[in-house]
Amino acid sequence: MTCVSQVQVVWHDGGVRGVSGPLEGLRVIDLSSVVVGPVCSGVLAEQGATVIKIEGPQGDLLRHLGGAARNKGMSAKFLNFNRGRQSLCLDLKKPEAREALLRLIEGADIVVTNMRPEAQRRLGVDAQALCERVPRLIHCSIVGFGSGGPYEGRPAYDTVIQGSSGMAGCFEASTGEPRFIPMVIADHICGLIAAQVIGFALYRRERTGKGEAIEAPMFENMAAFVLQQHMGALTYDPPIGEPGDARILSPDSRPIPTADGYVCVSANTDPQAHGFFDAIGRPELKSDPRFSTLSARVAHTADYFAVRMSALKDKPSAYWLAVFDAHDVPAMPYNTIESLLTDPHVQAVGLLARETHPSEGETFAIRSPNKMSGGMAPLGRPAPRLGENGRQALRDFGFDAQEIEGLIGTGALIVGE
Amino acid sequence: MTCVSQVQVVWHDGGVRGVSGPLEGLRVIDLSSVVVGPVCSGVLAEQGATVIKIEGPQGDLLRHLGGAARNKGMSAKFLNFNRGRQSLCLDLKKPEAREALLRLIEGADIVVTNMRPEAQRRLGVDAQALCERVPRLIHCSIVGFGSGGPYEGRPAYDTVIQGSSGMAGCFEASTGEPRFIPMVIADHICGLIAAQVIGFALYRRERTGKGEAIEAPMFENMAAFVLQQHMGALTYDPPIGEPGDARILSPDSRPIPTADGYVCVSANTDPQAHGFFDAIGRPELKSDPRFSTLSARVAHTADYFAVRMSALKDKPSAYWLAVFDAHDVPAMPYNTIESLLTDPHVQAVGLLARETHPSEGETFAIRSPNKMSGGMAPLGRPAPRLGENGRQALRDFGFDAQEIEGLIGTGALIVGE
Repeated sequence: MTCVSQVQVVWHDGGVRGVSGPLEGLRVIDLSSVVVGPVCSGVLAEQGATVIKIEGPQGDLLRHLGGAARNKGMSAKFLNFNRGRQSLCLDLKKPEAREALLRLIEGADIVVTNMRPEAQRRLGVDAQALCERVPRLIHCSIVGFGSGGPYEGRPAYDTVIQGSSGMAGCFEASTGEPRFIPMVIADHICGLIAAQVIGFALYRRERTGKGEAIEAPMFENMAAFVLQQHMGALTYDPPIGEPGDARILSPDSRPIPTADGYVCVSANTDPQAHGFFDAIGRPELKSDPRFSTLSARVAHTADYFAVRMSALKDKPSAYWLAVFDAHDVPAMPYNTIESLLTDPHVQAVGLLARETHPSEGETFAIRSPNKMSGGMAPLGRPAPRLGENGRQALRDFGFDAQEIEGLIGTGALIVGE
Repeated sequence: MTCVSQVQVVWHDGGVRGVSGPLEGLRVIDLSSVVVGPVCSGVLAEQGATVIKIEGPQGDLLRHLGGAARNKGMSAKFLNFNRGRQSLCLDLKKPEAREALLRLIEGADIVVTNMRPEAQRRLGVDAQALCERVPRLIHCSIVGFGSGGPYEGRPAYDTVIQGSSGMAGCFEASTGEPRFIPMVIADHICGLIAAQVIGFALYRRERTGKGEAIEAPMFENMAAFVLQQHMGALTYDPPIGEPGDARILSPDSRPIPTADGYVCVSANTDPQAHGFFDAIGRPELKSDPRFSTLSARVAHTADYFAVRMSALKDKPSAYWLAVFDAHDVPAMPYNTIESLLTDPHVQAVGLLARETHPSEGETFAIRSPNKMSGGMAPLGRPAPRLGENGRQALRDFGFDAQEIEGLIGTGALIVGE
């Protein structure tokens, strides 16, 4: 079969990563900052789109609020959430800058913003204004709270979304005390979702020729997420019990301590649970009425988890991983944030690439984790310094040299150091 | 301007939700189970695609493992993760069933699977086999660990992914003790990401006419997620400090206790933090050198959070929400899983719809949280009973009555109660 080689699945990574991403040729105007919007525009950039990040004279707040930095305005967090973007710094208080922005948008396929709706309207970059001007435009507005409800227009920050959407409530259901997940996780998830919806809108635009407006509300997305997970017995009316999945909510749902660290184990089915009991040298538990079947273990989750949590403390992690492997019990090494960087799988698949950043020096870049046989975009440029791509971006959108220098002259365009 | 009404942004929800979703007309064969795959195929269904969920004679494990249920095999969790799917029950041990499956795939646009690669190959439904047979097919394989690394092919469960990818490690960095987020969250996030990548592949297929294979590895996706959040000072080589964002990792990053519950506050910028001090009646803290500026508060995160955690305990939540509102401090009510169902915004936007399930009776259905002006699919059918759509699905894919009855006769097709 000579055709096999033609259709063979080849991941365009490693040596040949960089053939081209699915969004190549698309242009995005990125009116977003901090985390939720940049996650969204970051996905679009990673997939090959040209993304122009519009920043004000102070730059994205994350440049300054993102923790460790070698140089002012270039925090590590900014670097990691803003790869592949071009920075165009406009002083949108000036009418020439607002006019230039609208001209950029007229030449774009997509606008992403997490500005509050009121601020969008003030600048004339809300969906209502732009979809009229540019019918092929896909306008994605990521908001804290969707239109039509009492929280509409309220400011959204990751913690207030985690707390109001029930994410912190999952911890209260588990341990008795609400807490936030120690990541900017509602922002991160909603940014990924916004990029997902944009993809579907792009597909529709190819078939209809028409752009559209998207409203991606963080609160609703995270509330739906929590409810799918834990609405449980409250799904029924009247309810048939308490909400929540007891197994997932067990306060002992944790990596299991060993003599020198932790291992992560999943032992839910009968063969896995029985394999676990054999592995820890307690085969008698296989016939213990509390643990012999899946439904028995679910009914005795606390006891089962208590057995697990104390079972591994006398031997090191490597020992247990080998024993679990021999007993077909799914188990994996536990990673800290730090050990993740040297994890053998992370290294083998090249998830982190060494890169010399033009201003920040030697750094590690996080590659796209997903593979597409139709081609993937090259590892994009590192995160930009404030305004460093202003001249080039405007040229690419058809501004001539005189117009560009004029904008610089009035202070509407700031072109970076 | 008479054209305004033509381009006015109208969300196709409420009365007119159901015009049509962007994926209308697409057909998906869903070879997935439990959470990660069904999240992905659920998004596709929500966006209008026809999704045929292939189940074995025992049905998706989540039917049984998903906690509360009115009837066997119809757990609440199954209901909430399997809306909009049609269930086609095949005994894939029988060659006629495998042949029928391949014929279904030949008539499909998309295959989603979270079967292990080895099992995919055994059934002949791996990308290599199918992309040859159906060149326009988009084949999305969600795996635990990507190809090319030492963990390739290992079994993946949410907890082993949370533990190995550094998610549990974020808690160790915060509180000293690793723990899992009390949700099946790695599965949920990776299912959303897989749907996102499928959208981009659909867009590319419209332009090139070609399908492609996607590999979406959970470990790599979650490791990248954690690293973007917390690689911090380790982004630089040599590192410039400890990893992690100290503010996010503070053990006091929690909803703040009040006299009768909790409120969720975000007070990071100077105006917000100063507003917070005014709101709690301690204006002198605005000029306290530990708290006067953003960088001072970052350097004294523990002290700042300690002030916050004890500041609200003498008055009820409603009092504080009003006071914070008056001082422009972003704050929101705290929701438990249970209170989320009666949250006024959840109710006003119709995130939960009352629905009579044909076999499970009165239930609440979770609607799509995102709005698209180009049209949204109607609220899809409720989650199916095992095999209930077998006959119809096969007819829709061109099987004739004789073929269908033949498959039932050999036990290859099981058509439900």
